Amino acid sequence: MLDCIIIGSGPAGLSAAINLKTYKKDFLWFGSSSLSDKVTRAEKIVNYPGFPEITGKELCQRFQEHIQAQNLEITEKTVTNVMDAGGYYMVLADNEIFETKTLILAMGVMTAKPLEGEQELLGRGVSYCATCDGMLYQGKKIAVISNSPRFEHEVEYLAELAAEVHYFPFTFDSGISRGNVTISKDMPKMILGDTRVTGIQLRSGAQLEVDGVFCLRNAIAPTTLVPGIQMEEGHILVDRRMATSLPGCFACGDCVGRPYQYTKAVGEGNIAAHSVVAYLAE
Amino acid sequence: MLDCIIIGSGPAGLSAAINLKTYKKDFLWFGSSSLSDKVTRAEKIVNYPGFPEITGKELCQRFQEHIQAQNLEITEKTVTNVMDAGGYYMVLADNEIFETKTLILAMGVMTAKPLEGEQELLGRGVSYCATCDGMLYQGKKIAVISNSPRFEHEVEYLAELAAEVHYFPFTFDSGISRGNVTISKDMPKMILGDTRVTGIQLRSGAQLEVDGVFCLRNAIAPTTLVPGIQMEEGHILVDRRMATSLPGCFACGDCVGRPYQYTKAVGEGNIAAHSVVAYLAE
Repeated sequence: MLDCIIIGSGPAGLSAAINLKTYKKDFLWFGSSSLSDKVTRAEKIVNYPGFPEITGKELCQRFQEHIQAQNLEITEKTVTNVMDAGGYYMVLADNEIFETKTLILAMGVMTAKPLEGEQELLGRGVSYCATCDGMLYQGKKIAVISNSPRFEHEVEYLAELAAEVHYFPFTFDSGISRGNVTISKDMPKMILGDTRVTGIQLRSGAQLEVDGVFCLRNAIAPTTLVPGIQMEEGHILVDRRMATSLPGCFACGDCVGRPYQYTKAVGEGNIAAHSVVAYLAE
Repeated sequence: MLDCIIIGSGPAGLSAAINLKTYKKDFLWFGSSSLSDKVTRAEKIVNYPGFPEITGKELCQRFQEHIQAQNLEITEKTVTNVMDAGGYYMVLADNEIFETKTLILAMGVMTAKPLEGEQELLGRGVSYCATCDGMLYQGKKIAVISNSPRFEHEVEYLAELAAEVHYFPFTFDSGISRGNVTISKDMPKMILGDTRVTGIQLRSGAQLEVDGVFCLRNAIAPTTLVPGIQMEEGHILVDRRMATSLPGCFACGDCVGRPYQYTKAVGEGNIAAHSVVAYLAE
């Protein structure tokens, strides 16, 4: 049983990880080894105290150096579900289950709303995890919606299984070139289907028949990830200790609300880690 | 009428100032040009994300560079009183009054409790401000208690006025050498007097007759500074927006509670500044 699992590798998750490491806690840190697309893309940051002016890329480089100096390890698995097991948590990441006494949610905020039909058809043709559900679509026709190049290897994996992949990388240019992958700059608008996914409706008006839809995004709606967690105006409700409505479950960074600022995020990650340490000591 | 006054030049105050400057607000920032004794004295900081390992002195140097890059100005006055004027605040700093729509309190935390008798005799022989009250002790006998060398010039000023100064710099070595200043390593324990200060009781058991006692400390008790502000377990009570119990008055950093961490402080300073901007927009 782990002391803690941190979900998310943006500034909030990083700050939490640094502190748990200092306290020699036994934890796993799920995220991307490239940390945060959002930070990387920031043109110029002037309000992170200590760096008068820094690009997002440089700040990420500084964060990477910090990770190396402290021997921190990022586990590159996608967490798709968290279950409250009464006194501890079960975390499902790429089809593997991990048990932990506490949780720190730092998965950022979904900038886009879920598609119409997405929540309703989740588990009935809609999936957030290629490695979990890919096998179900062997020889089938699927759509893949993504907002980050970090999921391209998952798209490749799906393309090896499925007969046909319609790929919608709508915020970046894809590097994938495969006979059975059609890359589209059209925007998915609605996922169609009654009891199961039957197709996808595009902004252009076109419809596409598919057997399944994979939504591979940097952030996942908190209520989808952690059923039962209390929200407030689209963000996870926390108190000043960063405690959520679930015991032993803490949250920090953009997922707990505005301002969406790196400095705020590292501050909250620091508090969340200290709260975990205090919770474990009780 | 100013948009905001920030009190305190530690990491929380700095972070608030950086953000108010970015938003082009009209504000004054009261503190010390050497920023924070506490940060400067930190031997090694390993959990400020972006700096894998840094001394307090180096971090202060980085903060100074940030201040220069943004053309921020620290007003070196000691704030001794804040009055809620109903819709705005009057701030008394070195005998001058400043008016402001909002406040950010970032004055740190008092590591020592006030002396016995200190609160009771405040304004009746006990003073927190050399420039405000020094003139009252011309030709008299006073005690000066200080926890920071940054007040040495105020001690010099007092020594020019008073006949006799008993100086207790109990956390550092004083650089003052004057015929009428007696430096003592004994610890003051209690301020004596009924309706007015009559003397001071020392840890060694000795008693000293004095007409006045100046307590020159880096931090001042929030309830002394801002009468009526709501506290919780020795810290200023704030919500997640860093709002205190007084409208337009925000607080951040060590004065609002643990963990006493630089990363937390900069995060909270960021939030407080954003809350001020939102409050002014209303």
